[in-house]
Amino acid sequence: MIMPMKILEENLNKKVSLLLKDNRILEGILTGYDEYMNMVMDSVDEIGNDVNKKLGTVIIRGSNVVRISPA
Amino acid sequence: MIMPMKILEENLNKKVSLLLKDNRILEGILTGYDEYMNMVMDSVDEIGNDVNKKLGTVIIRGSNVVRISPA
Amino acid sequence: MIMPMKILEENLNKKVSLLLKDNRILEGILTGYDEYMNMVMDSVDEIGNDVNKKLGTVIIRGSNVVRISPA
Amino acid sequence: MIMPMKILEENLNKKVSLLLKDNRILEGILTGYDEYMNMVMDSVDEIGNDVNKKLGTVIIRGSNVVRISPA
Amino acid sequence: MIMPMKILEENLNKKVSLLLKDNRILEGILTGYDEYMNMVMDSVDEIGNDVNKKLGTVIIRGSNVVRISPA
Amino acid sequence: MIMPMKILEENLNKKVSLLLKDNRILEGILTGYDEYMNMVMDSVDEIGNDVNKKLGTVIIRGSNVVRISPA
Amino acid sequence: MIMPMKILEENLNKKVSLLLKDNRILEGILTGYDEYMNMVMDSVDEIGNDVNKKLGTVIIRGSNVVRISPA
Repeated sequence: MIMPMKILEENLNKKVSLLLKDNRILEGILTGYDEYMNMVMDSVDEIGNDVNKKLGTVIIRGSNVVRISPA
Repeated sequence: MIMPMKILEENLNKKVSLLLKDNRILEGILTGYDEYMNMVMDSVDEIGNDVNKKLGTVIIRGSNVVRISPA
Repeated sequence: MIMPMKILEENLNKKVSLLLKDNRILEGILTGYDEYMNMVMDSVDEIGNDVNKKLGTVIIRGSNVVRISPA
Repeated sequence: MIMPMKILEENLNKKVSLLLKDNRILEGILTGYDEYMNMVMDSVDEIGNDVNKKLGTVIIRGSNVVRISPA
Repeated sequence: MIMPMKILEENLNKKVSLLLKDNRILEGILTGYDEYMNMVMDSVDEIGNDVNKKLGTVIIRGSNVVRISPA
Repeated sequence: MIMPMKILEENLNKKVSLLLKDNRILEGILTGYDEYMNMVMDSVDEIGNDVNKKLGTVIIRGSNVVRISPA
Repeated sequence: MIMPMKILEENLNKKVSLLLKDNRILEGILTGYDEYMNMVMDSVDEIGNDVNKKLGTVIIRGSNVVRISPA
């Protein structure tokens, strides 16, 4: 039995892929999170519906997150 | 009377199918969950509206989940 | 005066029909529930917008439920 | 000053009309409710966008309710 | 500084107009409310997108309310 | 460091512009608010998608608010 | 491990870009926030779907925020 928060911890400082409710995907290094699954990522590439962006550091509100996976 | 959380426990380390609010289906091994129905799955195949993906390990936020069934 | 949870209790191990927010209908035997109206059903037939499925055992998150009725 | 819950109490065992967020209307006898405005109705006629149904007893989750009025 | 609840109190037994999230407007006499902004109105005219209705007494769940104004 | 509630306080009895989730804009004098960002405005002009309205006093439920700015 | 709130603190009085759920982007100086991620920004440029606006000071309700990044 692995707690979801434990997987976040194991992926600290590693590259993850984050799917948001609006279908955006953010790929970057997971550098932090809190108990609401608010997250901090570095070196972020955002893959949107129309356009991709380089974003650097990003804070994501947890309520927008669908799934997180190691990238 | 079977509690929903008890069914999750019985399906630990087994293959489950998870329907998300955006109509995605994730199939994989359920390796963990918490009291918010946040889940961890391994060896995940994502069956989306347009495209399928192999995702490996995935954390899913419980608020996106519609139903879970043994696969 | 009948409490909603009392009706759930009376329908344990009986066939119910469950309408979800995305318009899916799940029909099956109600085998469990909790205080959030998360539910467990067995021998489930899912009647979707496009396609029907046999699902066996299913956990449904209460936040997706619109109405429950004996079937 | 009349509390909303008091009006529910006054309509117990009377016919009410219930508008849901998805535009369905449920008409039937209000036989119960709880503090979340989850409700129990008997002899329910459901008036949907496309089709009407006879439903008998129904539990409705309060979070789907827009308005309740004596019918 | 006027608290929003104070304005509700001042409009008790007066005609108000209530805009709901689904764009319906309910006009009628405000006869009650609670701390969740659930409301009771009497002699209600509902002005919908397609059709108007006379509704008499209505309970409105606060979570559907956008704005309230004296009518 | 300025707390959001402090800015509301500074704008009491001044003209503000309020954007709602349904894209309506309300312009008027901010006369009150509470800790949920429920607000009271006077002399309100509502700028909707199709039509503008003069509304006088308005209570706005905070959950519908996107942003507030001095007007 | 960096907490999301710590990143907000580090960006106080710096230019940030804020993506909202309705796809608007607000760019301006972050001058404050609270524990709900309600935010205060100064010298805000709003980049909407159809039109851009100069907004000056803005309070943003946290529940509308998708992501924040240094701009």
